[in-house]
Amino acid sequence: MHTNYRALATPGVQGLQPYQPGKPIDELARELGLDPAAIVKLASNENPLGPSKKALAAVSAAAADLCRYPDGNGFNLKQKLAGRYGLSSGQITLGNGSNDILELAARAFVSCDDEVVYSQHAFAVYPIVTQALGARHVKVKARDWGHDLEAMAEAVTDRTRLVFVANPNNPTGTLAGKSEVKRFLQRVPETVIVVLDEAYCEYMVGDDMPNGVEFLADHPNLIVARTFSKAWGLAALRVGYALSSVELADVLNRVRQPFNVDALALAAASAVLDDEHYLELSREVNRLGIQQLEAGFDELGLSWIPSQGNFVAVDVGRPALAIYEALLREGIIVRPVAAYEMPDHLRVSVGLEHENARCLLALKRVLGN
Amino acid sequence: MHTNYRALATPGVQGLQPYQPGKPIDELARELGLDPAAIVKLASNENPLGPSKKALAAVSAAAADLCRYPDGNGFNLKQKLAGRYGLSSGQITLGNGSNDILELAARAFVSCDDEVVYSQHAFAVYPIVTQALGARHVKVKARDWGHDLEAMAEAVTDRTRLVFVANPNNPTGTLAGKSEVKRFLQRVPETVIVVLDEAYCEYMVGDDMPNGVEFLADHPNLIVARTFSKAWGLAALRVGYALSSVELADVLNRVRQPFNVDALALAAASAVLDDEHYLELSREVNRLGIQQLEAGFDELGLSWIPSQGNFVAVDVGRPALAIYEALLREGIIVRPVAAYEMPDHLRVSVGLEHENARCLLALKRVLGN
Repeated sequence: MHTNYRALATPGVQGLQPYQPGKPIDELARELGLDPAAIVKLASNENPLGPSKKALAAVSAAAADLCRYPDGNGFNLKQKLAGRYGLSSGQITLGNGSNDILELAARAFVSCDDEVVYSQHAFAVYPIVTQALGARHVKVKARDWGHDLEAMAEAVTDRTRLVFVANPNNPTGTLAGKSEVKRFLQRVPETVIVVLDEAYCEYMVGDDMPNGVEFLADHPNLIVARTFSKAWGLAALRVGYALSSVELADVLNRVRQPFNVDALALAAASAVLDDEHYLELSREVNRLGIQQLEAGFDELGLSWIPSQGNFVAVDVGRPALAIYEALLREGIIVRPVAAYEMPDHLRVSVGLEHENARCLLALKRVLGN
Repeated sequence: MHTNYRALATPGVQGLQPYQPGKPIDELARELGLDPAAIVKLASNENPLGPSKKALAAVSAAAADLCRYPDGNGFNLKQKLAGRYGLSSGQITLGNGSNDILELAARAFVSCDDEVVYSQHAFAVYPIVTQALGARHVKVKARDWGHDLEAMAEAVTDRTRLVFVANPNNPTGTLAGKSEVKRFLQRVPETVIVVLDEAYCEYMVGDDMPNGVEFLADHPNLIVARTFSKAWGLAALRVGYALSSVELADVLNRVRQPFNVDALALAAASAVLDDEHYLELSREVNRLGIQQLEAGFDELGLSWIPSQGNFVAVDVGRPALAIYEALLREGIIVRPVAAYEMPDHLRVSVGLEHENARCLLALKRVLGN
């Protein structure tokens, strides 16, 4: 008799559908016999600038020690982050990307049958980590594609252990303002963990933008998740971090794998924090790219969701999967978001000017306008 | 009233004591005001050779794409591993070090109150992942410092979901022979997952050495865990992998974080697999280093456990923590193993000839022989 190993898995894992990443350039090149250099990938909200020279230099210097384990405590990187945010090192937990932080938070506090609250259209990793633990999904209906933080606060019950809030949210780019976040945190009991996922916060434009760090002093139940994968340009290396109370950081650090962030990643992240110029340039390229995409979509008569991220979700006015596939044949990779209950939208990451232009041109051709 | 966040954590996490890594060179240098270059670290079973040139070249080439996410499916590395072992890519799960593999296996199959079997003196990560899940520890008494596989097979009950077997074991260096492993696998029911941790297998010396890959065809419940951190010299980069049936790999890959292995790590691991010369040299340096350490311990009148790894556990004949600390003051970092119920032993990793010599000399001084 043959053993069914999926059926032997924990109840949560049995029902798990893995995250679908953006299609890698090499994969599309293999599948369609294309030259990788001719492919434009606007599918994973990556920084189109290429890496910071300071990060590259740090990687190169650290490579001499490839045989050594990383510093499991991430001493240098934590010191730098602590200085940057006016916190203590003890308030920081490093993650293998912010994905790791999201998972650590859930695994530390959520047991089977506990409730986890998140928004409709929110980042896919929230339902995945909830499912993996066999916990109960409490998905709160979105308002204008964004988080309805009032409804989310109301959805918190005695069984709620954790709430995920993405701000700005991926894939919609929507943002809850500072006063809205503040009110939400005041309403959620201190015994419920709030993960405020600010992976895209460096891209926000405007006055009085929300900043999770400012809420830490008043909310010991708050975990602010950040990443080096977006505006800092280090997606390849997987470095994220949590900022929280010392008490929460102590718990997260217990659950963390001892060497969850590798040595080159630690070195590059430490170095890039000294490259404010790179960050500024990333923001500027993004600001212009967002304008370019929005104008292009307008020209095509497509509606889009105003975005505070490095991507725009555009409504193609019909089931988007076919458009996604047609774009692939043009050598353009974007992201279908049907799994986010947005079957008519595509998420287009901001690229360099010529990449955005190629995407818009291909989209025009494919849509037949 | 102040919330106790540790008490809010899951029952397993509440009792979790984090893994204690070997002390990093920089940390000791900071603490004692020493020159890092003057410190000898023989504490983490690292490859003393320095990295493979092929790995370095691959890291350098891949760094141009630091802004891009890694290939979440690890296509190239899996292809190479599959070719090397005569398996299919579908039988491979990549991990952020083999630590990740050990954790994935447990998280996929073990629920609260299930039993996990491992040996006394076995690798510390087994009790840690067991504890994190709130599962029951079934620690089987060792025989001559090594795994008693017969007793471990007998310890399997209806509630056992997973058995960890380290072969060779860390920190004892003990090895179960091929026929012994075979008998063990035949006795364990197919519904119990066996994780055969072969992190040190490349160092084994002798005829008829056990090789988990050979057992895969007959045992769909078997997960063979391997790593690039030891003989392949890539500890900094965190790459491990599981070899298993397609069915088990499918489950592990569902639980895995989508980008758990970073892009430079994937590139370096793929490249180093082409560097058989590096592997051979690593083995030879290790063989000579083991002889050097054993002879040195003999000269000091210390008994040691014969090792098939890249380290030797030596009995210093008294509580070893004080000796460990005295060695630190001499600029020598080794590993105390009291947490492994070996309070009189130190684990000394094999270094280069002059490093081993310095360690032995310092040990002589410290012991006052």
